[in-house]
Amino acid sequence: MPGIQDSLQVPTLLLDEARCRANIARMAEKARRHRIQFRPHAKTHQSREIARWMRDYGVEALTVSSLRMADYFADDGWNDITVAFPANLREAGRIQELASRIRLNLLAESLETLQHLDDLLESPAGIFIKADTGYGRTGLKPGQWDILDPMVEFLDGSKMLAFKGFLCHAGQSYAERDREGLERVHRASVLAMTRFRTRYLDPDRPLIMSIGDTPTCSVIEDFEGIDEMRPGNFIFYDLDQLRIGSCQAEDIAVALACPVVALHPDRAEAVLYGGGVHLSTERQLREDGVLHFGYLANWQDRGWNLGPNPPYLRKISQEHGIACFPDRKAFERIRIGDMVPVLPVHSCMTADIMKGYLTLEGQGIDMMHYYS
Amino acid sequence: MPGIQDSLQVPTLLLDEARCRANIARMAEKARRHRIQFRPHAKTHQSREIARWMRDYGVEALTVSSLRMADYFADDGWNDITVAFPANLREAGRIQELASRIRLNLLAESLETLQHLDDLLESPAGIFIKADTGYGRTGLKPGQWDILDPMVEFLDGSKMLAFKGFLCHAGQSYAERDREGLERVHRASVLAMTRFRTRYLDPDRPLIMSIGDTPTCSVIEDFEGIDEMRPGNFIFYDLDQLRIGSCQAEDIAVALACPVVALHPDRAEAVLYGGGVHLSTERQLREDGVLHFGYLANWQDRGWNLGPNPPYLRKISQEHGIACFPDRKAFERIRIGDMVPVLPVHSCMTADIMKGYLTLEGQGIDMMHYYS
Repeated sequence: MPGIQDSLQVPTLLLDEARCRANIARMAEKARRHRIQFRPHAKTHQSREIARWMRDYGVEALTVSSLRMADYFADDGWNDITVAFPANLREAGRIQELASRIRLNLLAESLETLQHLDDLLESPAGIFIKADTGYGRTGLKPGQWDILDPMVEFLDGSKMLAFKGFLCHAGQSYAERDREGLERVHRASVLAMTRFRTRYLDPDRPLIMSIGDTPTCSVIEDFEGIDEMRPGNFIFYDLDQLRIGSCQAEDIAVALACPVVALHPDRAEAVLYGGGVHLSTERQLREDGVLHFGYLANWQDRGWNLGPNPPYLRKISQEHGIACFPDRKAFERIRIGDMVPVLPVHSCMTADIMKGYLTLEGQGIDMMHYYS
Repeated sequence: MPGIQDSLQVPTLLLDEARCRANIARMAEKARRHRIQFRPHAKTHQSREIARWMRDYGVEALTVSSLRMADYFADDGWNDITVAFPANLREAGRIQELASRIRLNLLAESLETLQHLDDLLESPAGIFIKADTGYGRTGLKPGQWDILDPMVEFLDGSKMLAFKGFLCHAGQSYAERDREGLERVHRASVLAMTRFRTRYLDPDRPLIMSIGDTPTCSVIEDFEGIDEMRPGNFIFYDLDQLRIGSCQAEDIAVALACPVVALHPDRAEAVLYGGGVHLSTERQLREDGVLHFGYLANWQDRGWNLGPNPPYLRKISQEHGIACFPDRKAFERIRIGDMVPVLPVHSCMTADIMKGYLTLEGQGIDMMHYYS
């Protein structure tokens, strides 16, 4: 049966809208069941169209990773946005403008940033303090009270800054490989968040405790002590999430369709038009020692599925992907000029580079562009 | 002295035009000195403006990595272009259209591709056979005469396809760390190319032997047996090239200017607005075991320079770069809201993602966009 892939000429990021909507529906329902706010992160898809799909599932608030991304979604009618990245003081004009037109939450992890924001803002903004619950990337740890106490005191006295709560991203979950590991990461996060709450909760300060990473949001069923979740990658998932155990292969909602441009029967390898400028150079090191940059799936009546022992990209350069076929029979079915679907290791990076999608039904879906 | 960086709000790819022109001039002069054709690869910069600079140094022919890139440069008046990527048969219309308006060279590594091209073309095109001189990515090796002989025979009998020669990319040079290693790689390449020439040279077939990688083109001084060079990365260089020994730190012509958004004195780390969606996630594993994603340089009167024992990005995520300062004094000079220049590990990937440059003189330089 002919599929959308038959009409393509160049590497194209295909989006299975049905899978994507199922991913949104599942996470939205989970948040409702646990009575926590669902504020999905838009950095994965970066698309107004896909954000609009979320409205069908009751989503009214977004998370973004830059002020420009906040601008882009605010222009499409989103008026409750958290920029989950330390406030960039060099974008004072954009911060000011956004605060004047939407309910804007910003992130801070220093008194200095709070003082600057307080000085520059003419409209109020919410402030989350970035919490480090073990990832060691950004944020403050419980116990850093010498930094935190003055920040909270400053927020209490500020007219323009409303203290909203603590926000963490437990990115250490990406190193886990099963539910038990994710539960351990989550418990440690909740414990850290509880220490912040215990110290700073006050009837006048109804603090929000916000968590963010897709692995724990996908797998955890106990959200006691948590008020908000901000997963992003769940909307597409990818091979990293599959390995962690956050999703099934059938949940992966994007694949890069790549033309086959050469075959090397002597080494059972195909050369794909599809490289680092399409997939990104994100990689996985498997336990069997194989380092790869993506798996080749199989076309099915609608979309793709991932078979056992799949062909993988063993090497990637700017435009080339070198696909290695462990199964010789699978190699022999491939022809020069075919299109093959490649599942990305990290869909956020692939989407960001490709700057657009094509649904299985043939609809082009646009993304934000910084440079246009 | 205030520099261009003081006017910036967001991560911006700065281009030192003087260094870039010096890199072009040096390579063009080298090609002239050795009497070989200089056909620089445009995939690194992907910019009409920068390609125009090359004309000032006598460049009249380009290499590109996709048919869309050939289109983009043909639209700006380049009429002698080699697409150094196996011909993508799904873009038959674009191949046909390009062949009708410029001197187009295509790449093939199978009889099947040649037959398809011969069928579809209504205007003549040149054909290079892709040679594998040891990289093992694409191309045919000396000795694969059972594949090569019929290809050459087919080319001899084709009216539309003109056999131009053999083209290799000795990407294995990227694993070398000194001149001796690069000379070894180059000698092996030349030897392989000589075997092709010996078998197929004929008074009616004046074959061109074309080499491509920046490391050997930068370092080698003996081009006996070679007719053309197609380096790309040399125009900007980067930390990978610096480690290989292809360039000096003062030759690196691009740096990503990144806002500092948070400081962590307890671990002497700064959080930069500058991550995988700006630099790419290309990494270097140093011999001392440090894995990093870029070095922080220092601003100087004009542009930047790289100091000893530089701060490095130890971790990178979508928008975050975590800069680790081995020298505490250097850390203490950094303030929230500063801009810092980050030298990329692999400038081709950074440029591709950033989709534009700003020169130190404040001129915006556009790049090709697939999705606009």
